[in-house]
Amino acid sequence: MATAAEAHAMRRAVALAARGLGHTSPNPVVGCVILDAGGRVAGEGWHQRAGGPHAEVHALRAAGERARGGTALVTLEPCDHSGRTGPCSQALISAGVARVRYAVADPTAQARGGAATLAAAGIEVAAGLLAQEAEAVNEPWLTAMRRGRPFVLWKYAATLDGRSAAADGTSRWITSPASRADVHRLRAEADAVVVGSGTLRADDPHLAVRGREGVTQPLRVVLDTRATVKPGARVLDDAAPTLIAVAEDADTAHLRRLPGVRTVRLPRAGTGLRIPALLAELHGRGVRSVLLEGGPTLAGAFLAAGAVDKVVGYLAPVLLGAGPAALADAGITTITQALRLETTDVTRLGPDLRVTATPTAPAPLAEEN
Amino acid sequence: MATAAEAHAMRRAVALAARGLGHTSPNPVVGCVILDAGGRVAGEGWHQRAGGPHAEVHALRAAGERARGGTALVTLEPCDHSGRTGPCSQALISAGVARVRYAVADPTAQARGGAATLAAAGIEVAAGLLAQEAEAVNEPWLTAMRRGRPFVLWKYAATLDGRSAAADGTSRWITSPASRADVHRLRAEADAVVVGSGTLRADDPHLAVRGREGVTQPLRVVLDTRATVKPGARVLDDAAPTLIAVAEDADTAHLRRLPGVRTVRLPRAGTGLRIPALLAELHGRGVRSVLLEGGPTLAGAFLAAGAVDKVVGYLAPVLLGAGPAALADAGITTITQALRLETTDVTRLGPDLRVTATPTAPAPLAEEN
Ligand SMILES: NC(=O)c1ccc[n+]([C@@H]2O[C@H](COP(=O)([O-])OP(=O)(O)OC[C@H]3O[C@@H](n4cnc5c(N)ncnc54)[C@H](OP(=O)(O)O)[C@@H]3O)[C@@H](O)[C@H]2O)c1
Ligand SMILES: NC(=O)c1ccc[n+]([C@@H]2O[C@H](COP(=O)([O-])OP(=O)(O)OC[C@H]3O[C@@H](n4cnc5c(N)ncnc54)[C@H](OP(=O)(O)O)[C@@H]3O)[C@@H](O)[C@H]2O)c1
Repeated sequence: MATAAEAHAMRRAVALAARGLGHTSPNPVVGCVILDAGGRVAGEGWHQRAGGPHAEVHALRAAGERARGGTALVTLEPCDHSGRTGPCSQALISAGVARVRYAVADPTAQARGGAATLAAAGIEVAAGLLAQEAEAVNEPWLTAMRRGRPFVLWKYAATLDGRSAAADGTSRWITSPASRADVHRLRAEADAVVVGSGTLRADDPHLAVRGREGVTQPLRVVLDTRATVKPGARVLDDAAPTLIAVAEDADTAHLRRLPGVRTVRLPRAGTGLRIPALLAELHGRGVRSVLLEGGPTLAGAFLAAGAVDKVVGYLAPVLLGAGPAALADAGITTITQALRLETTDVTRLGPDLRVTATPTAPAPLAEEN
Repeated sequence: MATAAEAHAMRRAVALAARGLGHTSPNPVVGCVILDAGGRVAGEGWHQRAGGPHAEVHALRAAGERARGGTALVTLEPCDHSGRTGPCSQALISAGVARVRYAVADPTAQARGGAATLAAAGIEVAAGLLAQEAEAVNEPWLTAMRRGRPFVLWKYAATLDGRSAAADGTSRWITSPASRADVHRLRAEADAVVVGSGTLRADDPHLAVRGREGVTQPLRVVLDTRATVKPGARVLDDAAPTLIAVAEDADTAHLRRLPGVRTVRLPRAGTGLRIPALLAELHGRGVRSVLLEGGPTLAGAFLAAGAVDKVVGYLAPVLLGAGPAALADAGITTITQALRLETTDVTRLGPDLRVTATPTAPAPLAEEN
């Protein structure tokens, strides 16, 4: 049984881990608190960015000699491999900690084994303390590791009758400033933000994070089969890196001179480009979490491909009775095929409702998207 | 200032009033608690059905001699007229109560004046205790009195993407048993339940209340311009009274022999029948609260006519991406015309969300609906 001090320290470690969200990919977020032999907090740390020291190293440095005979609380199983930084298992052994409690096991082949190494060195090791909270903070990375593709969060904004714009296409603003600020938080936590060419043409979106300090800007991704994006598009500015996904035969000459803009060629699907190919490409670039911002056509394609892990809907207390739906064809024709979700959170944001839900039976990636 | 005992008794009176919901039209719901001279509860009562004794009379009977020198807590200003029962002001004076506290003033010309009569008889009278709660329990009746037409609550069920059925029309069941039971509660509290001929043809709905004890069944109303309803339709059975609204020139011969079924002829509108004419007709029949169950076409017409006072949406955690929208044309073409609401309640019902909202600026009844 964990002591109250240990549970408290693990809760703190989870909060520290969350500070890394959006900065650590392809690595997970991790938080660590060291208690001295008397159970008092001796040091804490978190993994701040890929290539930087791991959480345990930060925390051990802060604790110094007080780590000896103490307990390390870590949100994820300490790593056992020498990547860009040395293995954390060795660091913990050298520091002389007596006990290690971690919340969640590392599911990756190259990192796992940390617990066994620690135990072999005579350290008392236990797993599972606050596992649910630690799973939640690392949900994107853990999902990416388990599925072998980035975690995808689909975000949409709609009226109570499910419309994303009025009949004439106008939509500014359906949702409130509080909801729009929340979307910037989602962007800041994501490694990549994805839209289709329809949204590009209709809205000329910028897709970078605004109004937040110290963010790592996400990769802006546009699915644009025929490379129709114009050089003056806001998504092509230097506020964040940009990737334009096009078909193998697209003419991309007009995009060549733009700094920070890359193109990638993907196979075609029935409509547009193959979603699984896009996700594989992004995974290969170290992207672990994708914020899918739509529009309705692309969202339908992702859902049909079984490639949505979580849905966040911003519902405004507005009725329109006409205008484009927030979600277009997802290959569902009858009620028994309906995509059923489990609502995990409902929060009021100013006048709006934010509904967070997870597909109940994640469909396997379809052969064709 | 009210004493704690008085506030407590008024809260109880509001709860008692609620027991009358669905049974008292064209009267309001009213609850009453009598405290004796020592501040102890001496009697309580509520208005149980139109034509029956008023709340004050029930409570005074229960209190007997203990009412003398005591305090009456009433949710609505005691009436001053002799309708089917004598005026409550006289009953309170005869019983010898020393004080009357009521929550909300009676807005109707024929009933108001009770407070003045009581004061003239030397009784200490005060208004406003728990006015908000008492307003809420009587919202339909108070709204009907203020607007001169029945209160209209539009209820709809939809997916998170705003659809009320899949592409092939199937919809059983989008929402959960908990949501469907809640709709029966709304029906039980309403004086009339209204649908259009589209819903009649698609669903053959029954519209009576099931699974609840001691209900007063609502009047079932179908807007059916050309009297297309077939004699075997479930809405024509004897479980509840039924009113079929038709155009002036409709042939209703096939409806004549059905017991409990009435027809009413209304002027035509652009589409179907005039909503204000329907509401005036229902008001004349003593209907004070209408549950508008749809479908999307009729709901759009009610909204366009400014004839929706409250919206209750049952949102299921389901995505469809295709299929009919929960709300059709309400005459809104651009975002500045959007109908904005204020969300007054969000409740989780099983897996579903129930969102209750009120139009922020109630549009005046339009000339044409
Ligand atoms: N309410 C919201 O949350 C929200 C969010 C975003 C956008 N919107 C609105 O949505 C509207 C645009 O709608 P939309 O549906 O046209 O935009 P979209 O989904 O962003 O773009 C659709 C386009 O993406 C391309 N695409 C590439 N691969 C695809 C694939 N596998 N599946 C589907 N499409 C693929 C296709 O064009 P190519 O063949 O040219 O590649 C397709 O026509 C705008 O009015 C915008 O304001 C609303
Ligand atoms: N999700 C939900 O909460 C919900 C609730 C109810 C129904 N539904 C679904 O809705 C579908 C039916 O849709 P619907 O739109 O055809 O049904 P509807 O709104 O019930 O019926 C529309 C019809 O009502 C008549 N009507 C009479 N006066 C009208 C007026 N002033 N304005 C508009 N219509 C008037 C018109 O037909 P006439 O000219 O013949 O009179 C009109 O075509 C069904 O599939 C049903 O399952 C869903």
